[in-house]
Amino acid sequence: MAFTDLWAQLEPIGRDAGTGGYRRYSWTAADLECREWFTATAADLGLQPECDRNGNLWAWWAPPGAAGPAVATGSHLDSVPDGGAFDGPLGIVSAFAAIDLLREQGFSPARPVVVAAFTEEEGARFGVACLGSRLAAGVITPAAARDLRDSGGVSLAGAMTAAGLDPAALGPDADRLAGLACYVELHIEQGSALDGLGAPVGVGESIWPHGRWRLELTGRADHAGTTQIADRRDPMLPYAAAVLAARRSAVARGALATFGKVVAEPGGTNAICSAVRAWLDARAPDEDTLAAVTGEVGAAAQAAADEQGVGCDLRRESFSPVVSFDAGLRDRLAATLDRAGAPVRGQAPVPVLPTGAGHDAGVLAARLPTAMLFVRNPTGVSHSPAEHAEPADCAAGVTGLAAVLRDLAGP
Amino acid sequence: MAFTDLWAQLEPIGRDAGTGGYRRYSWTAADLECREWFTATAADLGLQPECDRNGNLWAWWAPPGAAGPAVATGSHLDSVPDGGAFDGPLGIVSAFAAIDLLREQGFSPARPVVVAAFTEEEGARFGVACLGSRLAAGVITPAAARDLRDSGGVSLAGAMTAAGLDPAALGPDADRLAGLACYVELHIEQGSALDGLGAPVGVGESIWPHGRWRLELTGRADHAGTTQIADRRDPMLPYAAAVLAARRSAVARGALATFGKVVAEPGGTNAICSAVRAWLDARAPDEDTLAAVTGEVGAAAQAAADEQGVGCDLRRESFSPVVSFDAGLRDRLAATLDRAGAPVRGQAPVPVLPTGAGHDAGVLAARLPTAMLFVRNPTGVSHSPAEHAEPADCAAGVTGLAAVLRDLAGP
Repeated sequence: MAFTDLWAQLEPIGRDAGTGGYRRYSWTAADLECREWFTATAADLGLQPECDRNGNLWAWWAPPGAAGPAVATGSHLDSVPDGGAFDGPLGIVSAFAAIDLLREQGFSPARPVVVAAFTEEEGARFGVACLGSRLAAGVITPAAARDLRDSGGVSLAGAMTAAGLDPAALGPDADRLAGLACYVELHIEQGSALDGLGAPVGVGESIWPHGRWRLELTGRADHAGTTQIADRRDPMLPYAAAVLAARRSAVARGALATFGKVVAEPGGTNAICSAVRAWLDARAPDEDTLAAVTGEVGAAAQAAADEQGVGCDLRRESFSPVVSFDAGLRDRLAATLDRAGAPVRGQAPVPVLPTGAGHDAGVLAARLPTAMLFVRNPTGVSHSPAEHAEPADCAAGVTGLAAVLRDLAGP
Repeated sequence: MAFTDLWAQLEPIGRDAGTGGYRRYSWTAADLECREWFTATAADLGLQPECDRNGNLWAWWAPPGAAGPAVATGSHLDSVPDGGAFDGPLGIVSAFAAIDLLREQGFSPARPVVVAAFTEEEGARFGVACLGSRLAAGVITPAAARDLRDSGGVSLAGAMTAAGLDPAALGPDADRLAGLACYVELHIEQGSALDGLGAPVGVGESIWPHGRWRLELTGRADHAGTTQIADRRDPMLPYAAAVLAARRSAVARGALATFGKVVAEPGGTNAICSAVRAWLDARAPDEDTLAAVTGEVGAAAQAAADEQGVGCDLRRESFSPVVSFDAGLRDRLAATLDRAGAPVRGQAPVPVLPTGAGHDAGVLAARLPTAMLFVRNPTGVSHSPAEHAEPADCAAGVTGLAAVLRDLAGP
């Protein structure tokens, strides 16, 4: 079954009619419909579907004679709020299409090939990104996971039970991971580096170290209409200084730093704030650079806070160290894609790119060799209904992934 | 009855045990308790209490022989969220105490003296400041007022009905205002100018022109972890530029400009905002200066927005032109306070001060001669539980107001 047919089946599920964005949150009706699509598609393609103890889906291609550790590929089906169509689903649909293509080509794998769809990669419902792969890898405890709550107070355990799964079964899946030779995740690029290089497909090099910091600025509530400038302790001013410092430092150091969430208290139109709380998302090629960026943001906020008589605290809330994908696997993918020729790699050797985003392939890298393929995103827009990849580039992704699977699962 | 006794009766009503701030919103239980206190105090003092068609309270001192237009004094009993004890109540308690003092001194007025408590001066529940005086002066229509809603969806009409009043009676009260010779409002200073001058009491000169402007910055939602700097359209950056420009311009021009409310959308910790909306409160000694300040803030926001590829719109949402208090009344008050001596005015002539805040006296200035007395606020803090006036300064306010009433209502 061709990529475009599979894509057309999946595309309407969970799309909001108003925004055009996707709301595929794990264990909701939209997610269950995506899961049904996965299982039905596996069956159509003669693959053996399976749901593991953590709710991750698998579709096995294990013809008679295929033996040994399996080659896994896939991604996720869930979305951020009002996300795009490609982030996640492109990897799943491409995996099914690549298997279909290999079979059309008469290829039969020497070892099993399996398509994986990991649960709650975005963390949009229960707040923990890569939840399904974290559970499988044992980096979050089952008890902690069961008790995660969505914004309506529903626990993961409750949501899974309502969907007919047994949350008591949640937990590490060491045997399953030990049975995998490697995991290759195909994903739309969440940036426009490939577009700048004229390449339809690229290979992942590493996931940048990244984290979230909470900036807390404490001033004094006052009347905006009467409090003289000299008497003010207004936390909005050091917040503004921090925003500008974050951009300045990111540009100077080739990093990313973003304030996307800010809460002003009490938030009256005629009141000086008593406090401003904001969250800094920062990512950099290496941990030293990341520390330099957050250090510069913190120093700028502190200096402006001192000037205004405002209290200032910048505290790390979460952190993910650098993930380097398996070097041998990465080089093998790049060589395979180079051999696949210009339709897949463009006119130059296939680019090898770092990424600022977390992925299940990053979590699983601690347990088995993992790698990523990126497909060109002409605008770089992601996590938005405007996220887009051209059909020709999606086709190049399928061709490239098929070549990779043939190489890894071949005799 | 002395100031301190009256103050002690009123002080606990509507105070939040957690914050120590007041939550006296019009027509709530706390407000009704304040109103009962007003009526009982009037009765205790031998004054005639009255509730007018707009819910404003009056307490009349009209001994036999007192005739002609009345001298009105007072303020309001309602508070902002978690406001202080003095903003409003100080004017009411001081008015009762001044009448008590005049009677102790054997003074009997030649014309009636009346204490007024205006409804919803802060606009904290129904969103329109000086609602009671606006209704009386006919600058808001009864129909518009009746349909104002609080944050829970309750209308003013519904809240007044629940409190036993008839909202059908709301409306202009021309006869009542025509029966007043003048209105003198005593208020805690919402700034620290008197403190800097070493003066316990001052006289109001004018209310600065002021208004609220809405800044709308429209960018593009994107992934904070992957979108390259060059691809971003982040509205948080021009917001930060606007915040800093507002302070810069206010300092340069002797004005006030404040961003106290900001809303980031979608407001995710790992997302570049699609939009930032914020509200600018700006006030200045004259309308030209005010226009210059808001012009500079708008220009700075626009320039930064252009640089970031972000849409920018700064729109006026509300505006109050300059209010000059009646010059003859103002000079008469200043002369009276000067004669009252150092305990009231300090060592120099009584200061005459502008204010950035709106007051019922500002609304009523269009209908009758009005004036204001300010009592020293050593920290300048207002609209906050930390708002404070020293007992000696409150006593100076009562002495000064009694002298003013004696002068205005005397033979």
